[in-house]
Amino acid sequence: MARGKTRERIQQVARELFIAQGVQRTSLQEIADRLGITKPALYYHFASREELVRSIIVPLIEEGRAFLEEATARGDMEPRALLEGYFDFHYRHRDIMMLAVREMTTLNDLGLLEIVTGWRERLGEMLVGADAPLAAQVGAVVALGGLADCTWTFADLPAELVRPPAVDSAMAALGL
Amino acid sequence: MARGKTRERIQQVARELFIAQGVQRTSLQEIADRLGITKPALYYHFASREELVRSIIVPLIEEGRAFLEEATARGDMEPRALLEGYFDFHYRHRDIMMLAVREMTTLNDLGLLEIVTGWRERLGEMLVGADAPLAAQVGAVVALGGLADCTWTFADLPAELVRPPAVDSAMAALGL
Repeated sequence: MARGKTRERIQQVARELFIAQGVQRTSLQEIADRLGITKPALYYHFASREELVRSIIVPLIEEGRAFLEEATARGDMEPRALLEGYFDFHYRHRDIMMLAVREMTTLNDLGLLEIVTGWRERLGEMLVGADAPLAAQVGAVVALGGLADCTWTFADLPAELVRPPAVDSAMAALGL
Repeated sequence: MARGKTRERIQQVARELFIAQGVQRTSLQEIADRLGITKPALYYHFASREELVRSIIVPLIEEGRAFLEEATARGDMEPRALLEGYFDFHYRHRDIMMLAVREMTTLNDLGLLEIVTGWRERLGEMLVGADAPLAAQVGAVVALGGLADCTWTFADLPAELVRPPAVDSAMAALGL
């Protein structure tokens, strides 16, 4: 088995076990057993459970950053398109996001809560402007917070069903 | 110092330290030192840090349950009044709610996440009906999730300033 391939398989099994039973209840031994490899073979790729968690979360953070940077660079995205992008990002990563909420302490080191809050602030500014009156800022928080919650509450439904009414509600919350 | 009084002062100092520096970073020793009492004196009231955390969270859970039961019993509350009550509840307990989000594992035992999610479901049913079409259910999640987020995002502003625009946005998200 190629080296990169093993690394990916470890991440895939770890992600499944983390989501099914939580990070704290999943040992590296269990992951190795599931893959039929030895624990040293696993350690060759990931020195600790925290490193494995980090390797699963970091691409999500990078993708969120890329979305925000593209939106900032374009500068003229319609509110609906911004909201759709925000919904889709959360929907795509809803399993990991739910895990993050359930096991906040594990993820505190990565500062995920601060990062996601920071994104929301920047998106809010794009939607209503940096010096918007309080009512508009509040509308942006309702819209963005509500959208994120939809991706967790309706995690089992396809995005195509949930996205349109969620974005419509968010637009209404923004007064648009 | 009367027994009940000491218990309350322990809870008050614990609450301040938990909020300022987190549950994990606050020891019973530190709480005792702050109060100028011995650790055994503290243990007389609370056998562990977890019991202390629980004693702070349980009244919040009771209050939320009481609000829901009153709303259910009345059965005819206007959506705006329901949303205002939901906002006020979250606003009143925003410090503890933020703590809960930051230190989910400590609070997992109490099932706070499930309890709060359950409340949201019941409130959603009261707002849009139990068999509402998906679009209406989605609107309720945007409204309620967004309201809760406002109480954390604008935690430093008085409720009187944040509640009206937040409830207006939530009403709009519901299409009301």
